Amino acid sequence: MNFNEELAKRVEEIETILKNYLPKEEGNQKKVLQAMNYSVLAGGKRLRPMLMQEAYRMFGGKEEVIKPFMAALEMIHTYSLIHDDLPAMDNDEYRRGRKTTHIVYGEAIAILAGDGLLNYAFETAAGAFAMKPGEQRVEQAFSILAKKAGVFGMIGGQTADIIAEERKEPLTLEELLYIHENKTAALIQSALTIGAVLAGAGEGHILNMEKAGYDIGVAFQIQDDILDVTGDMEKLGKPIGSDEKNNKATYVTLAGLKQAQKEQKRLSEEAVRLLEKEGAGSFFLELVRSLVTRES
Amino acid sequence: MNFNEELAKRVEEIETILKNYLPKEEGNQKKVLQAMNYSVLAGGKRLRPMLMQEAYRMFGGKEEVIKPFMAALEMIHTYSLIHDDLPAMDNDEYRRGRKTTHIVYGEAIAILAGDGLLNYAFETAAGAFAMKPGEQRVEQAFSILAKKAGVFGMIGGQTADIIAEERKEPLTLEELLYIHENKTAALIQSALTIGAVLAGAGEGHILNMEKAGYDIGVAFQIQDDILDVTGDMEKLGKPIGSDEKNNKATYVTLAGLKQAQKEQKRLSEEAVRLLEKEGAGSFFLELVRSLVTRES
Repeated sequence: MNFNEELAKRVEEIETILKNYLPKEEGNQKKVLQAMNYSVLAGGKRLRPMLMQEAYRMFGGKEEVIKPFMAALEMIHTYSLIHDDLPAMDNDEYRRGRKTTHIVYGEAIAILAGDGLLNYAFETAAGAFAMKPGEQRVEQAFSILAKKAGVFGMIGGQTADIIAEERKEPLTLEELLYIHENKTAALIQSALTIGAVLAGAGEGHILNMEKAGYDIGVAFQIQDDILDVTGDMEKLGKPIGSDEKNNKATYVTLAGLKQAQKEQKRLSEEAVRLLEKEGAGSFFLELVRSLVTRES
Repeated sequence: MNFNEELAKRVEEIETILKNYLPKEEGNQKKVLQAMNYSVLAGGKRLRPMLMQEAYRMFGGKEEVIKPFMAALEMIHTYSLIHDDLPAMDNDEYRRGRKTTHIVYGEAIAILAGDGLLNYAFETAAGAFAMKPGEQRVEQAFSILAKKAGVFGMIGGQTADIIAEERKEPLTLEELLYIHENKTAALIQSALTIGAVLAGAGEGHILNMEKAGYDIGVAFQIQDDILDVTGDMEKLGKPIGSDEKNNKATYVTLAGLKQAQKEQKRLSEEAVRLLEKEGAGSFFLELVRSLVTRES
């Protein structure tokens, strides 16, 4: 199988796992359950659970306990998109070609569906306690998930992003990196470190995975900033130069294209080197390379 | 000390615990941290953590492990109020005489502060894993918290309430009880059962606490419906008969005042009887009586 076939197979596997963990659409609260499932099943690359599974397997993990955490992480990612799309936030009507949750179900149900998914992520992950009662690795995985998703992780990044949009002064490079690190890299870090922790990897290995998660997340975002200047409009599916037109501070506007490309390359290479050192196989390495060097 | 002095002392103790668990207001995401703390410290009866502590003590609990769960439950209660007050939900500008979170911080930050508190509740409760690694009671407490707060608990009740407001047909009594059970009783049940579980109570005792939590929550809500008809406007601080005027289905409009009073009495007495049987002291019993027979 080539990389793309392998990738498609993994996505299908992960969607099967996800569907198993989604709630049944019944009862007096049926509408919120429908909205939750609609949002999770709206597609997506399933990147975070995929990275978690790769890290788990790389460190020798072979059990079912990873599955509730894979599902939980995708639920958290999905809830953050539902709330991001709300009129009071980014006010988006479409995502991946489908109507956003609040357009289909109304704003009140969309807020509750986001809350419901965040909460259900923790309910789902708590299912791992029943699989391995008293297992400290599961407790540690739980703590990582909660921290990286929260105000000292993803929500922190979303907040800084909102504040930056509301205020007049431009972002500093330090603030931009804070947003990239927390809004994007934090969940990737949680994917890689939870995989390592559940497989029983030692502390040094876990720290390497956290570092690789930072590199991947930030390189991914800088690449986004670079593509807005150098990209191929047809591949991207959006106009080039839109960041500059919107006066949006990016790594390129703050540090220049050359420095952005240099830093992007450094982070990408470091991520691959770290994962190679930890023993990543060819699919895992190819997956990471495809993320950090994407052209769309 | 009489009951009211004892009550004031407990509230103060709980606010000290809460403050210890709230995040420091610093960093790039400072604004969301301020909004979270503003909302938690906006007052309130601290009923849920108080009931949790009483249940824990009643079953012989003497350790610190209850504290992160007390704080977590109050954070969950608070986030639900922030999101309930949003323009797309109840659209309230004041709560307990203070401006609501979205009025002070804007809608986007209020959404994120609610998300932040829900997530931080689980981060805070996860702190109990570090206090007692590998302790299954803590894992069980965690699972109860997640379930009762979620789509098969509080969020389920909020959803049914929203749907009822949006549609034209009146509520059935079964639907109304579903809303009371989930929107109100679920968190009270989690308070009482988590206290019991962490103190090491056996399964039969835990089930009794869950039953008592149902009784207290539903009796509290039926009392609310009764007071809207029979209450003293000055004590209530709101006009009498407002439910009927708003065409709002209540236990009284659906089953009649007599039946409402009868059911309210039955539930209240059962709650007190169950707690007495489990060994509740005078403060605990008085607290529950004051809740179910309140006049405002």
